[in-house]
Amino acid sequence: MMVEETRKASSRAGRPSSKASTRERLIQVGTEVLSERGFSSTGIDEILLRARAPKGVFYYYFASKQEFGLAVIANYEQVWDQRLERIFSNPQASPLQRLRNYIEEGMHGMEKYSFKRGCLIGNLGQELGSLNDAFRQRIELVFINWALCIKTCLDEAIAMGEVRDDLDTTEIARYFWTGWEGAILQCKLARSVRPLEDFSRILFKYILGKGNANVQ
Amino acid sequence: MMVEETRKASSRAGRPSSKASTRERLIQVGTEVLSERGFSSTGIDEILLRARAPKGVFYYYFASKQEFGLAVIANYEQVWDQRLERIFSNPQASPLQRLRNYIEEGMHGMEKYSFKRGCLIGNLGQELGSLNDAFRQRIELVFINWALCIKTCLDEAIAMGEVRDDLDTTEIARYFWTGWEGAILQCKLARSVRPLEDFSRILFKYILGKGNANVQ
Repeated sequence: MMVEETRKASSRAGRPSSKASTRERLIQVGTEVLSERGFSSTGIDEILLRARAPKGVFYYYFASKQEFGLAVIANYEQVWDQRLERIFSNPQASPLQRLRNYIEEGMHGMEKYSFKRGCLIGNLGQELGSLNDAFRQRIELVFINWALCIKTCLDEAIAMGEVRDDLDTTEIARYFWTGWEGAILQCKLARSVRPLEDFSRILFKYILGKGNANVQ
Repeated sequence: MMVEETRKASSRAGRPSSKASTRERLIQVGTEVLSERGFSSTGIDEILLRARAPKGVFYYYFASKQEFGLAVIANYEQVWDQRLERIFSNPQASPLQRLRNYIEEGMHGMEKYSFKRGCLIGNLGQELGSLNDAFRQRIELVFINWALCIKTCLDEAIAMGEVRDDLDTTEIARYFWTGWEGAILQCKLARSVRPLEDFSRILFKYILGKGNANVQ
């Protein structure tokens, strides 16, 4: 996944006077800052400053910094569920084309933010996976849900004869996110979408390909 | 790569009175702490405390925290160069078996440290890749060098007829580290070596496999 605008889930951010909008603005700013800088080195004061929220407000909405971080993850997941739904339920694209569309949107997202943001879930997983069990379990759950989406797509692709029919779609779906997150990391380092292009080419050519007919 | 003991490059850590040993002990502790907690949220005071070094000593050895981080990376790379040399120059294993041995050592390393450390280079790349250009370029260089090692192994495997001969070994070698780092992340989240097992199975079965004969 890629960090992009999360306005769909924070649509009332333009009304600063309401309680909902302040909480949403904090989450919106948190998404940006945690994506770029990580959790541990980000201070609550900085979040409040960037959200132009008064100091006392943070603990009104969140019991702790951890609860704030988990709320940011939940919001991010919700936004991406909408994106996955849009891409993977698109009736005008075949299952395999939906997967290609997803990867292409990812490349555009990396370029749009100059390779600085990457994936909030991957970033926080890398940073906190071994430090904080609440985050670890929450982030693991996100990947499990995302893998289910890819598995459904691959099962549909098999049913339509688009990919080889001997695939273990559960295994490949899990692996999709492994390769994806590794590629996002390499895109950040190389400041280029080439690692995502490599990932896509290898996925479609070697893993999903139906013999030479599907080799690109 | 995995964070393990770096004593080969810090062999004099047992002689705290020498200048070299103090510097090496700082780097040794830095390797452990930066691997587990990252760069931004680690303070110099903590490094000094854990290394049992006096406060004034840090800036005697390192001009800045960034220079210290880069020295930790250089030491880690040196240790891993030795490990890569040992595994990938092993005359008793075929090229493909060397690759398998490398992955298996990685799994043992993850288990040994209870899935808490992962790869220093991947961790710092994820954290700093979009924040600090000196780190980004240095970490990218490490991956380029590591990819060269895998490319040589794959070229030898082709020459020996162990893998399909139509592989673009430069592309697959780059991709190896993409999948590897993604799998290390998922191992940390799942507290299991299964993601590395998935990565290995898919690599050998789909990408390197010589048709059904090599499918496992």
